[in-house]
Amino acid sequence: MSDESTTFARLKAAVASFAAEREWEQFHSPKNLSMGLATEAAELMEHFLWVESAASRALIDEPGKREQIADEMADVACYLLNLSNVLNIDLSGAIVAKIAKNALKYPVERCRGKYRKDGG
Amino acid sequence: MSDESTTFARLKAAVASFAAEREWEQFHSPKNLSMGLATEAAELMEHFLWVESAASRALIDEPGKREQIADEMADVACYLLNLSNVLNIDLSGAIVAKIAKNALKYPVERCRGKYRKDGG
Amino acid sequence: MSDESTTFARLKAAVASFAAEREWEQFHSPKNLSMGLATEAAELMEHFLWVESAASRALIDEPGKREQIADEMADVACYLLNLSNVLNIDLSGAIVAKIAKNALKYPVERCRGKYRKDGG
Amino acid sequence: MSDESTTFARLKAAVASFAAEREWEQFHSPKNLSMGLATEAAELMEHFLWVESAASRALIDEPGKREQIADEMADVACYLLNLSNVLNIDLSGAIVAKIAKNALKYPVERCRGKYRKDGG
Repeated sequence: MSDESTTFARLKAAVASFAAEREWEQFHSPKNLSMGLATEAAELMEHFLWVESAASRALIDEPGKREQIADEMADVACYLLNLSNVLNIDLSGAIVAKIAKNALKYPVERCRGKYRKDGG
Repeated sequence: MSDESTTFARLKAAVASFAAEREWEQFHSPKNLSMGLATEAAELMEHFLWVESAASRALIDEPGKREQIADEMADVACYLLNLSNVLNIDLSGAIVAKIAKNALKYPVERCRGKYRKDGG
Repeated sequence: MSDESTTFARLKAAVASFAAEREWEQFHSPKNLSMGLATEAAELMEHFLWVESAASRALIDEPGKREQIADEMADVACYLLNLSNVLNIDLSGAIVAKIAKNALKYPVERCRGKYRKDGG
Repeated sequence: MSDESTTFARLKAAVASFAAEREWEQFHSPKNLSMGLATEAAELMEHFLWVESAASRALIDEPGKREQIADEMADVACYLLNLSNVLNIDLSGAIVAKIAKNALKYPVERCRGKYRKDGG
């Protein structure tokens, strides 16, 4: 199983089963899931708190770090997949649509190599 | 294109192209991407700030809300995909591994229907 | 020492001394301090993740919780005080100015008892 | 009014009046206030997202930035003051207690000029 072959639907089904087996759907309101997602995003960010931006590229090579960071990223992803289940949102479609909007917002010829405030 | 058929690799390639065309890789340090991810997670959460947990399940049906919330979720996802590119992490593999760890941490028979502090 | 008598300046001096003694000013860029603040805010929020909004009012009375929550609030406050030191911002003045802006943005007669999206 | 002379109690009273006049106490559960705090912390952080750590020290001198950043810091502070009101926590006492704990956790002789993972 890898990013090459794994679909979003497959992992949405995996997190849905996990929640259903434990009867956790009652706790999985969008409000709570969005809080959980923000919490995990902060835990991921904490790994990079005291390193400089350039040095943060090499942090993953320190002992134990790859697994820890991958785990935090997975936590973020699981909340996002749970949220897309609960809200019945097609995440791939949303991503493709947002990339198209961002392509209009950040035209290549005007943004090349330029600092910009907004994400993308 | 939908969650049924879209692989993680396909959208990782899409966000990589987007960044490369704009020569934004220089800004995409793990530190910065983790900050962007946390920022977008907070924007997503803000939609659910003043509604009760139960009412947050219906918020998506208000006019305009579905697209706004899908957009915020896509922003979170794009940062996560960019981060997995930069760190060379197989996100699907990380998710599957984390679900397996969580299955051990939260055994079905002990967690069924029970409030728990930690995410999943 | 209590909120009745303690000034902002006094605690700004306390966190400044703490950082200076450890020669940590080099790490205390506004970027890093804002990340630390967001991280601690998420840790504070995590205490209230799986409780309903109404029940969250009583959480503080559970054993150990008062000290844990007070500690997280203090962590948030310390980052905010450090940031106001580094940026040379008068925090009290900023708070009073923001309350005045919010009073214009949220007139009493129009906002009384009403749900609103924006914080205040 | 300035940090030199303003007590925490005075600004706690100011935010309490603001909420009471609008009958907003019903929305000010600890859960909601902690979410608002985390949201504002992310908005503050967003100002420093695409600048390097060193450059973030000078950002405050760009036109308009001082007021914007002071406003975001005030938003964070207002949520923290509201939360200390709702939870009946003496914030100054909590800060002083936490600084004392951190002094034990990060002894001067062992931490001087050293990178550390945990905040302070």
